[in-house]
Amino acid sequence: MATHRFHPLRYFNVIGTAEPCLRISDGDTIITDTVDASGLDAHEAAVAQRPNPMTGPFFVEGAEPGDTLAVRIDRLTPSRATGWTYSPLSHTVLDPAAIADQPSQQRAVWSIDREAGTVQLREPVKGLETFSPPLQPMIGCFGVAPAGGQALSTATSARNGGNMDYRLFAPGTTAWFPVSVPGALFYLGDGHACQGDGEIVGTGIETSFEMEVTLRVLKRTIGWPRGETADDIFTVGNARPLDQALQHATTEMLRWLGEDYGLDSRAASHLMGQVVRYDVGNVFNPAFTVACRIARQWLPKL
Amino acid sequence: MATHRFHPLRYFNVIGTAEPCLRISDGDTIITDTVDASGLDAHEAAVAQRPNPMTGPFFVEGAEPGDTLAVRIDRLTPSRATGWTYSPLSHTVLDPAAIADQPSQQRAVWSIDREAGTVQLREPVKGLETFSPPLQPMIGCFGVAPAGGQALSTATSARNGGNMDYRLFAPGTTAWFPVSVPGALFYLGDGHACQGDGEIVGTGIETSFEMEVTLRVLKRTIGWPRGETADDIFTVGNARPLDQALQHATTEMLRWLGEDYGLDSRAASHLMGQVVRYDVGNVFNPAFTVACRIARQWLPKL
Amino acid sequence: MATHRFHPLRYFNVIGTAEPCLRISDGDTIITDTVDASGLDAHEAAVAQRPNPMTGPFFVEGAEPGDTLAVRIDRLTPSRATGWTYSPLSHTVLDPAAIADQPSQQRAVWSIDREAGTVQLREPVKGLETFSPPLQPMIGCFGVAPAGGQALSTATSARNGGNMDYRLFAPGTTAWFPVSVPGALFYLGDGHACQGDGEIVGTGIETSFEMEVTLRVLKRTIGWPRGETADDIFTVGNARPLDQALQHATTEMLRWLGEDYGLDSRAASHLMGQVVRYDVGNVFNPAFTVACRIARQWLPKL
Amino acid sequence: MATHRFHPLRYFNVIGTAEPCLRISDGDTIITDTVDASGLDAHEAAVAQRPNPMTGPFFVEGAEPGDTLAVRIDRLTPSRATGWTYSPLSHTVLDPAAIADQPSQQRAVWSIDREAGTVQLREPVKGLETFSPPLQPMIGCFGVAPAGGQALSTATSARNGGNMDYRLFAPGTTAWFPVSVPGALFYLGDGHACQGDGEIVGTGIETSFEMEVTLRVLKRTIGWPRGETADDIFTVGNARPLDQALQHATTEMLRWLGEDYGLDSRAASHLMGQVVRYDVGNVFNPAFTVACRIARQWLPKL
Repeated sequence: MATHRFHPLRYFNVIGTAEPCLRISDGDTIITDTVDASGLDAHEAAVAQRPNPMTGPFFVEGAEPGDTLAVRIDRLTPSRATGWTYSPLSHTVLDPAAIADQPSQQRAVWSIDREAGTVQLREPVKGLETFSPPLQPMIGCFGVAPAGGQALSTATSARNGGNMDYRLFAPGTTAWFPVSVPGALFYLGDGHACQGDGEIVGTGIETSFEMEVTLRVLKRTIGWPRGETADDIFTVGNARPLDQALQHATTEMLRWLGEDYGLDSRAASHLMGQVVRYDVGNVFNPAFTVACRIARQWLPKL
Repeated sequence: MATHRFHPLRYFNVIGTAEPCLRISDGDTIITDTVDASGLDAHEAAVAQRPNPMTGPFFVEGAEPGDTLAVRIDRLTPSRATGWTYSPLSHTVLDPAAIADQPSQQRAVWSIDREAGTVQLREPVKGLETFSPPLQPMIGCFGVAPAGGQALSTATSARNGGNMDYRLFAPGTTAWFPVSVPGALFYLGDGHACQGDGEIVGTGIETSFEMEVTLRVLKRTIGWPRGETADDIFTVGNARPLDQALQHATTEMLRWLGEDYGLDSRAASHLMGQVVRYDVGNVFNPAFTVACRIARQWLPKL
Repeated sequence: MATHRFHPLRYFNVIGTAEPCLRISDGDTIITDTVDASGLDAHEAAVAQRPNPMTGPFFVEGAEPGDTLAVRIDRLTPSRATGWTYSPLSHTVLDPAAIADQPSQQRAVWSIDREAGTVQLREPVKGLETFSPPLQPMIGCFGVAPAGGQALSTATSARNGGNMDYRLFAPGTTAWFPVSVPGALFYLGDGHACQGDGEIVGTGIETSFEMEVTLRVLKRTIGWPRGETADDIFTVGNARPLDQALQHATTEMLRWLGEDYGLDSRAASHLMGQVVRYDVGNVFNPAFTVACRIARQWLPKL
Repeated sequence: MATHRFHPLRYFNVIGTAEPCLRISDGDTIITDTVDASGLDAHEAAVAQRPNPMTGPFFVEGAEPGDTLAVRIDRLTPSRATGWTYSPLSHTVLDPAAIADQPSQQRAVWSIDREAGTVQLREPVKGLETFSPPLQPMIGCFGVAPAGGQALSTATSARNGGNMDYRLFAPGTTAWFPVSVPGALFYLGDGHACQGDGEIVGTGIETSFEMEVTLRVLKRTIGWPRGETADDIFTVGNARPLDQALQHATTEMLRWLGEDYGLDSRAASHLMGQVVRYDVGNVFNPAFTVACRIARQWLPKL
């Protein structure tokens, strides 16, 4: 159960099979640096290219195709005092008739106050003078090498994870990814200081981070990313349209409730029908992300 | 500000222009009975036909096309001790490859315990012996007559409301509907004792209700249903696929933030981008329902 | 087998249950007038309102719910020498990023030359000085009253037909509609002098027509509109997104190949897999239209 | 203008950046072998793996990012006398309610008669005893290396081409692909002896081929694949749902009509609105394919 402090020297814009940056053991912890979505590091130096440059890949000893990599998000610490977003709203979330009325795309800078635990626009905007939502760090893009020799752009996501931009990928959550290659080859980056549902301006508050994660190999097989928080379990589907992402997530939850909680399809539907929650991870990237979430309080005790 | 106790004699399976069952004044309260989605009343007598028989229409004096009807949901009291659901999960939420594996559709009966404030399956199901989620009454289907002489099935929803199956249409919420005909012609019914996101078994816990609502005419124009709760404001889009429903809801929220809170498109996007929440009302009916929701705490103080 | 010359006095913007304008016998022919999509008649007088004012409804003796109404399109004769279209392309067919670059919507007038059998823009447009495609009349919107007391806007389409804007609804084609009310209640209008696939400018060349159709009751049940031409049989699905419209059309074709041609699902798939054609009726209206078409030459001889 | 006879020794299941199998000059012709979608060669020996093993990549001297690679399909000769398909219809083209009624997936073998120019099921199927559609060879999957170091599965398609399964990628057609890497890195394979629209059984008639193509570098930039036949020009969009694929294709055609035919957006819409044709390439793969096609007879003479 070693802890590795890794300083990346290069970054990746695809998630695929590449030379590992570090080999670690099952159960080890990594502390490392990530740059923002545009490649700016803690000093706002441009050290990598768009989109979403990844730190990695980390080779986890013992991880084999068919296994699951469990990634506990221990800590996400912004490594600088500012982040940026775009405005206005993305085309993907507007009625087509409203698109032409939108102003041009601009980049805005936000102050990140780690002491206060808040973020705030640096330049005042009329009506938002006091708007100061909480600092809620999350990982926008992370995952493992996909199957079949694919190398997938960090702009998008798939079964192997990737650019899901889901705000529950936050400290305290353990994310699960289906392993397709020996060593899993885990990548991470694209941290956000805050983000609403859907990443509807095309960004969260993009900044550089020091991230701490603990990686564990589970000898079980999953179809899509999953997650565990203190309060919930959730599954994630990545696809277009949202309907298909939701179908992937729901089908994976049905499978999970059967595997771990002994619920057959009918029983699972009784439970899900009354208490399921759907979250929209992103509705901006090439593949949209929907999470199917169930509070632990409703799960059968085993 | 009169209160009317109305006992329905007939029910409607379309929302359209029909002879009003009652004329009320702006600000009046209605206490009335609704039957369940299959037409069973408080005595489980079959008094109406599928789908979703509606009580109404109520003519509200002073409501004119271009106005908004605000419907405060004062109270939703189940009028019998049981409700029913379907199982298994709907085709709309499953990967197509998983559909063939599902068991046949069955109806299950739930006990509704008004004292305890819970619901529970009447016949025990393995793994759900202690599953007893809270009684959380909501209105599945309500709205006003649509424009242009249309009569829309209560199976579906549109700009005028209808079968949205969104769990925040609950006591304490005020729903807004765009008025298209004189008197608004308001209908309601299809109460659920409980329902998760998406109505993913094709039903909530369907039962009969005594419903109490207060109707008010707002001299303002909206494009899609809106809602106000103690904590949130939300807008609703109804369409397929989910993407389009989400676009309608988001565009309507952008409009609302401009009208009432003085935020231009860019400012609204800064706010929404960090704190917006999306809820899936239903992903089962012919038109799916997505709500765009913002906590009041983030809205500019006026 | 009478022929009725009917002169409409009023027009309808919904397809639903209304007082019949004429009662005819099974097998009778109707010759009648239709106005253009905006309500202009043969003299360009505004006699009706948008959208797509319908002539009808015609009550066909002997048609009962569960039957099929077969509408042979005998003749579509433009009743004036001009029609109109919109430009530019609809939002529904453009990448969202391209929408803002489009010019404002304008109405263009086309000359309809019945002698030459062509249409041509009346005002010259650079690059289209010689563009003169054939006059290919079609019915944009027609169908029968839907089930359950619905009244559906002529802007859209559903199982009962409506605004499908499919160019094979042309002279020589027999269209089939599923009957849901006694007498079928048939409506027609919205003729186009010409239209490409998808109605991608939001219109065909809209003009008034004298239309001649022959109505026959088939004692058989269908799920979605069907059509027969000299060369093909086709089925039509109406929904969003296009995927769902295509699913409806394909499923209906599978059913037809079983009913009339003795092909089980496997055999039908072998045939369809090699020779099916898909046409996009419209990708503009609230419900999109996709046709699934098979050339008669490939059908089993019975 | 050399002609190269290339015998592949290895095959690829992703389209990405890999060591070229051959370097050729701009204008050269390649004659090579392709295996079927499951990796069977001309002798039905299994020499490669699913999905859609590719021959290539071919490096074309002078091709640079931002250029276009024009691939003239000179000849597609089946290299064995049989091919195979699946039945029944794909889940993607059926109403969800119809999925459970379908028989299990089976593989069927077809005889390919090069003399007669026809294909026929080898085992008789009731109702299809005389079903013998024409041999119409096409390329299912071909394209060039994508941008940014991606390696995309040959199961899917994107801007760079890939598994589009469009029946007009046939002899006589010249396909255009946007070049993203030096040398273009062209791959091809997955030949079909015949296929209807949509590849709705999940396959065409899959067989091995000798393919002959001529590659030319165009110093111009395109956004999506394009094609030229004797009669038509077309553009191709690859995405889900079909709506988005259609948007990509239509937007690319609008661009082409401006670049090469001098039509502004308004003029192009007048032309497209009356004469455009949409074809469904596939509605089976992860990304669906729609082509936007215009007959040359309607194009402005330059």
